[in-house]
Amino acid sequence: MKGLFITFEGTEGCGKSTQVAILAERIRAQGRVVRALREPGGTPIGEEIRHTLKHSKDNAEMTPEAELLLMNASRAQLVREVIRPALAAGEVVVCDRFYDSTTAYQGYGRQMDLGTVQRIIEVAVAGTRPDLTLLLRVSPEVSWERLRARQAAMPVVRDRFEEADRGFFDRVARGYEAIAVAEPGRVKVVDGARPVDAVAAEIWSIVQPLLEDQR
Amino acid sequence: MKGLFITFEGTEGCGKSTQVAILAERIRAQGRVVRALREPGGTPIGEEIRHTLKHSKDNAEMTPEAELLLMNASRAQLVREVIRPALAAGEVVVCDRFYDSTTAYQGYGRQMDLGTVQRIIEVAVAGTRPDLTLLLRVSPEVSWERLRARQAAMPVVRDRFEEADRGFFDRVARGYEAIAVAEPGRVKVVDGARPVDAVAAEIWSIVQPLLEDQR
Repeated sequence: MKGLFITFEGTEGCGKSTQVAILAERIRAQGRVVRALREPGGTPIGEEIRHTLKHSKDNAEMTPEAELLLMNASRAQLVREVIRPALAAGEVVVCDRFYDSTTAYQGYGRQMDLGTVQRIIEVAVAGTRPDLTLLLRVSPEVSWERLRARQAAMPVVRDRFEEADRGFFDRVARGYEAIAVAEPGRVKVVDGARPVDAVAAEIWSIVQPLLEDQR
Repeated sequence: MKGLFITFEGTEGCGKSTQVAILAERIRAQGRVVRALREPGGTPIGEEIRHTLKHSKDNAEMTPEAELLLMNASRAQLVREVIRPALAAGEVVVCDRFYDSTTAYQGYGRQMDLGTVQRIIEVAVAGTRPDLTLLLRVSPEVSWERLRARQAAMPVVRDRFEEADRGFFDRVARGYEAIAVAEPGRVKVVDGARPVDAVAAEIWSIVQPLLEDQR
């Protein structure tokens, strides 16, 4: 059986992590082997890089270029150590963020040159692309409110991205819209503002036919 | 006073670290402010990346692409956080390895595409180039023997690069020769097989005129 590579994308608070878990479980219930991964991270080296990106004592000072290169170092490792072998073995890989996050956050959000961002991504993935990308769309207002509610419940540890300002969030959201417009075949937009079950049902209606096609 | 950016390059065991320390001290004795740095590292974020590169429990499995991107993430941070501000303040920056190491080790040594390597370096340095690069040349035999002697004196911690095989070393040495041929104005080759004092004297004969020119 052929492997299947599905990625989840969206702004903070869009519900990705919850939906990754639900989808992975549903696919497992069909008897398929599923790898649920996250970026940055997903490998021992990638998790070290994730730590540097998110919780370095000096991460407020991390340059956009270092951030871009670190993200893609983690991705290069994940692609070769986990994703390609899993797909070659016929597994379903479900990843919480992949290269569209870099385009949206570093490219649109931090306003780095999009051509540079694409070239760095290409070094990291070298042709490994998702079969399907689920973009969970929530309004910037919903994203911002969910994020503030989550932060209020958290201890002192804060997240570099989650400290970023409102203008940054708006640019990231616009970046995701541009990606969806550019690749409608791969990227399916799902309204993430609805209840979890409704979102999960729509996602399943998109994924199930792909799994059926592989039988 | 204008800043001055000097890098040291060469294979393992060429004597770089010793010569960086001697040169930094001599320049300081002239009343200049000197920053002695090393790559990867030189910033808190860079030192975290250095740790991931050198001592990750799984680093034997690190992919060449992740290595290339990590090296340059450290470099991007070092250039913007330390090197550019120091040069702007008129300091002398002396760095133990810089981008020529990436060309020699990842490009020639690991045989990655040289164009890709150059593009990643350019994202990291964005035009910040050394005024002078001192390439300490030792034969692969001397490099190899000094390295084995050093490892024999070390505890169990081993270094990713220092585990690499002899063919890798030979390719790196050839890479450095190609760099020296391509940029004879910037790259000065110094015979590193002689006694420390003789090497230091030759280096000083190259650097002193540059400092004089700045008076």
